[in-house]
Amino acid sequence: MVRFAVIGCGRIGRMHARNIKAHPRADVTVVQDVATTAAEETAAAVGARVARTAEEVLADPAVDALFIASSTDTHVDLIAAGAKAGKPVLCEKPIDLDMGRVEACWAEIAPLNPLVMIGFNRRFDPSFKAVRDRIQAGEIGRLEQVVITSRDPAPPPAAYVKRSGGLFRDMTIHDFDMARYLAGDIVEVQAMGANLIDPAIGAEGDIDAAMIVLRAASGALVHINNSRRSVYGYDQRVEAFGSEGMLQAGNRRATTVEAWGAARTAAQDPVLDFFIERYREAYLAEIDHFVDCVETGATPLSSFREGREAQRLAEAAIRSLETGAIVRVSDVAVR
Amino acid sequence: MVRFAVIGCGRIGRMHARNIKAHPRADVTVVQDVATTAAEETAAAVGARVARTAEEVLADPAVDALFIASSTDTHVDLIAAGAKAGKPVLCEKPIDLDMGRVEACWAEIAPLNPLVMIGFNRRFDPSFKAVRDRIQAGEIGRLEQVVITSRDPAPPPAAYVKRSGGLFRDMTIHDFDMARYLAGDIVEVQAMGANLIDPAIGAEGDIDAAMIVLRAASGALVHINNSRRSVYGYDQRVEAFGSEGMLQAGNRRATTVEAWGAARTAAQDPVLDFFIERYREAYLAEIDHFVDCVETGATPLSSFREGREAQRLAEAAIRSLETGAIVRVSDVAVR
Amino acid sequence: MVRFAVIGCGRIGRMHARNIKAHPRADVTVVQDVATTAAEETAAAVGARVARTAEEVLADPAVDALFIASSTDTHVDLIAAGAKAGKPVLCEKPIDLDMGRVEACWAEIAPLNPLVMIGFNRRFDPSFKAVRDRIQAGEIGRLEQVVITSRDPAPPPAAYVKRSGGLFRDMTIHDFDMARYLAGDIVEVQAMGANLIDPAIGAEGDIDAAMIVLRAASGALVHINNSRRSVYGYDQRVEAFGSEGMLQAGNRRATTVEAWGAARTAAQDPVLDFFIERYREAYLAEIDHFVDCVETGATPLSSFREGREAQRLAEAAIRSLETGAIVRVSDVAVR
Amino acid sequence: MVRFAVIGCGRIGRMHARNIKAHPRADVTVVQDVATTAAEETAAAVGARVARTAEEVLADPAVDALFIASSTDTHVDLIAAGAKAGKPVLCEKPIDLDMGRVEACWAEIAPLNPLVMIGFNRRFDPSFKAVRDRIQAGEIGRLEQVVITSRDPAPPPAAYVKRSGGLFRDMTIHDFDMARYLAGDIVEVQAMGANLIDPAIGAEGDIDAAMIVLRAASGALVHINNSRRSVYGYDQRVEAFGSEGMLQAGNRRATTVEAWGAARTAAQDPVLDFFIERYREAYLAEIDHFVDCVETGATPLSSFREGREAQRLAEAAIRSLETGAIVRVSDVAVR
Repeated sequence: MVRFAVIGCGRIGRMHARNIKAHPRADVTVVQDVATTAAEETAAAVGARVARTAEEVLADPAVDALFIASSTDTHVDLIAAGAKAGKPVLCEKPIDLDMGRVEACWAEIAPLNPLVMIGFNRRFDPSFKAVRDRIQAGEIGRLEQVVITSRDPAPPPAAYVKRSGGLFRDMTIHDFDMARYLAGDIVEVQAMGANLIDPAIGAEGDIDAAMIVLRAASGALVHINNSRRSVYGYDQRVEAFGSEGMLQAGNRRATTVEAWGAARTAAQDPVLDFFIERYREAYLAEIDHFVDCVETGATPLSSFREGREAQRLAEAAIRSLETGAIVRVSDVAVR
Repeated sequence: MVRFAVIGCGRIGRMHARNIKAHPRADVTVVQDVATTAAEETAAAVGARVARTAEEVLADPAVDALFIASSTDTHVDLIAAGAKAGKPVLCEKPIDLDMGRVEACWAEIAPLNPLVMIGFNRRFDPSFKAVRDRIQAGEIGRLEQVVITSRDPAPPPAAYVKRSGGLFRDMTIHDFDMARYLAGDIVEVQAMGANLIDPAIGAEGDIDAAMIVLRAASGALVHINNSRRSVYGYDQRVEAFGSEGMLQAGNRRATTVEAWGAARTAAQDPVLDFFIERYREAYLAEIDHFVDCVETGATPLSSFREGREAQRLAEAAIRSLETGAIVRVSDVAVR
Repeated sequence: MVRFAVIGCGRIGRMHARNIKAHPRADVTVVQDVATTAAEETAAAVGARVARTAEEVLADPAVDALFIASSTDTHVDLIAAGAKAGKPVLCEKPIDLDMGRVEACWAEIAPLNPLVMIGFNRRFDPSFKAVRDRIQAGEIGRLEQVVITSRDPAPPPAAYVKRSGGLFRDMTIHDFDMARYLAGDIVEVQAMGANLIDPAIGAEGDIDAAMIVLRAASGALVHINNSRRSVYGYDQRVEAFGSEGMLQAGNRRATTVEAWGAARTAAQDPVLDFFIERYREAYLAEIDHFVDCVETGATPLSSFREGREAQRLAEAAIRSLETGAIVRVSDVAVR
Repeated sequence: MVRFAVIGCGRIGRMHARNIKAHPRADVTVVQDVATTAAEETAAAVGARVARTAEEVLADPAVDALFIASSTDTHVDLIAAGAKAGKPVLCEKPIDLDMGRVEACWAEIAPLNPLVMIGFNRRFDPSFKAVRDRIQAGEIGRLEQVVITSRDPAPPPAAYVKRSGGLFRDMTIHDFDMARYLAGDIVEVQAMGANLIDPAIGAEGDIDAAMIVLRAASGALVHINNSRRSVYGYDQRVEAFGSEGMLQAGNRRATTVEAWGAARTAAQDPVLDFFIERYREAYLAEIDHFVDCVETGATPLSSFREGREAQRLAEAAIRSLETGAIVRVSDVAVR
């Protein structure tokens, strides 16, 4: 039984706490949040106790592993503290908005060879995982191109965009990781963006629609299209084209019902919306994978390195957007 | 070049005349209709001349084959006359509403071993034909069950129903033939029907909705569901279940467009409506098959026998509807 | 918190115990099974204690409700005992294989006005429930026809068929209930069946393929097709045809992946197989509905009456199969 | 009746000759090709006579309009000659591989206000046309993004690539036109390409896989992905994303058949392959549109301007590929 501490009891932290509780080989021992009420409600919901500080959590011998769902600015310190305390860490993305701090964190903890997993939930979606597994099994021959469609249902408040680091750092980062998940390391990034949806986002200096092309080290090309608005639901799809075939993974709906009428036929439900519904199975599988890694010492499918590399692609995309030119990923300074 | 006479220049006759004209190895030499204007218009459209009577057509040495699209009550006489004149005949269904006349016609012409094809257009639909061919190639193992969905867009005038012989004889007859096309000879028929749509049809003593179950000599079971109304278009589908798999053939639409919006996703066009649009390719293939048969002497995929057997199933279904019991097809008297 | 006793700890009982445990307002207090090991394992899995006998369970004041998943021959006695003890009962189908015992049970407990729910899981499937709700909301106008496709992945051992009462009583019963769920009370039944798959089933006097047509009191016609074998997975679909449209609910798969290759395109996974996977969400919703009923006193969507009426349709179908004639449901004697 | 001369009797010229012949208000009077046999065969197939030279064609008063399907290097001269002779011209793309010659041609004929249509067949595909019409009718609100998937079944011989001007000029040109068809004028082009499929194509200095992003004057972003190989058939799709919804147009198949088996379900046919099959209806509609324009004097949906602008995007893409930077379309010099 892996005994978790959940640090951060916002919406996503609470969801993970419930998922950990439901796992047959995991439990939530303790929860912590600067907002005491959130911590208490979460503790009650999963039968855990409340710790007042992260330090208290880290010192607790009854805590085997940390789930970090607190605010982004706390991540690197908590990851480092967990690593030093010898406690495996599963941390929500991003590691930090500042690539320098990300690199510094890794420099500090790498010698400890810690178990750190970043919460790229989409890697655990049954359909996206099947696409990856089937590519790797050779079903479509050599992978040549990938198209990633990733469109949020509705734009966040402009204030959030300011805090989050913007479209590429808070939203596309999942797609950059998906690109690496399917096509491996990326060497070049080209980005085009626009502010088409919410002028307030533009006023914050950010875009809300983007089209990006990546070149992988393998030679494969990858396209990502993003929008902050999708009225038909959370649009999450991938297509992988290979020398011997193509694989698609599509959206999910609440039912299989199709309606046929005088005006239209085979009309289906809007697609599942938003991430908690769309990726319900993925979040469960993510916990399961982390528990496996804790038990066996295996390297997670989404380690610290994946978190860092996805962020580096976000930085490269921002630079491409500014310059209108292809950016080589190796030119995005690290150290 | 097979030179056709087209007898009967109503909507369906005109369509066939144009299709024959478009065939690379066929042409329309002469057309005939009791309605002179219809004959003249059709003749002008395909560059044929007008004959005043069927007798004139039959005597014409420049006519290699007959297409009979005149009213049902003229069919048996024209088939017989064509057979005696040594001219291959392609005749619209039904052969006759009276099974006795159908049998008598066959008794008269069988010794001539004539080439007579009945216009069961659905046998030539690329999708239904592919299902049949793939069943026969063994793709789904032994055929065990078939479901035929066949629903017209809108009910005909009640007056038509009276004249046509009713639902089973004018509409289901295509499905009875489809059952035989996919599952072979039928030995038992069970029918249930209702007047759900148009009370005027009920007033004529007919039904406008039906569900039928057939047992084939092979042991396979076949279901047919019919309706005189389908607001989403002409619904024409089959499913064939076998020991090793299942094949479906579905509806056709004018475009592949899918619409995704806030209320529904992946909504497609209404299905093609009505038979001239839905079975456009089938009608062309039907002519092509008949021309092949004329050229090679091969037996048509839908010979006189198919026309007779489908009608016999209609008679059996009528009897089952009246008695509420299974009817053995062999009990539908044939002399 | 509704505290359940689970009686019967076979595969299905254990699944329900886990589902009850996972429900936020329910718990499993006690489990019981004549097989002590099964009871102990289930108890351990959900943190319940083991009762040695059903009597012990019934006497336990810490038990608010019974889940009956024991063998069919124990159902009526346990239902009656639960009713007398004032404990709401959720019982797996069938109530009993003998309609006389079913009726006697009801005669005994009806005066107590008990809360008895029968486990027709499909009523709680999100897709089938959506079809029903949308029919009742008038989306397709007047309901005219229903097609129910229900095909098990693989035939059971012939010995099971003997014990279970045969195809109509053990498998089609779910479809009879679905017919009533969508189209209301049924007045006529016509059945055709065959032994196409496993000769051992035929040797037991049963069929393994069936096609049935029902007439509802509303006038609607319903078709059911059944097979004991479906190599592409557990095939569970409905189509509901109305005066203003049609609704379909289809199969479910583990992923949304489609494969496109040289031989075929858009190929999807086999469908979910078997009921525990296919109806996972339905089983959870079933428990939720029962808990609601216990809390509010509402009548379950699948009460004792639904269990009895579905069985009556099975009896009618058996009689139709024997006689080849339509059977009026009112003629299936109930006393 | 519009009387056509067809100049160029290769595979595509012959197809168009047949399509013109089949049009109710058009005919082929004369055909011409430097290869006499091809001309004679085409003439025989459509009942036309053979002209020995283009000059003979242009001088023929019985010729109302020209269909130019001869080799690319003859296009501008024939277009200009047709314009001067007052004969409407429908010319296969491209106008010329040299943008300077394209511009010079237009400078020469523009004062004549000629009727010149370029054969961008995809504009007449029923599905793509429906997407455009529905966008323009406002169905998806403001158009924000477009994804064009365009993948040929198999790479051409490397020698062809040399002659054709390369991927962007011979293949992507259709997609550049589709981008303009759906999103209007384009202002910026970003391209990434690779030689992933046939090394012989790389040896000729060309690419065989590409991903392109365009920015429209309207603000919309457009992605194009191209490949010279698609083993599952000719992959031709568009997705148009707007503020109020999304429209997709997909591939076409020969049948609607789906196969369900133990290994996979709902598997469909490979998609139609190649352009003559895939765009059969589009080619017919293209002729119909041109005949309409000849009759009414309307400006074609794909005029000389569309031909020139699509080529300009190809030039811009080539420059972006060379420099790795966004290219402004207005910087692609036109005089």
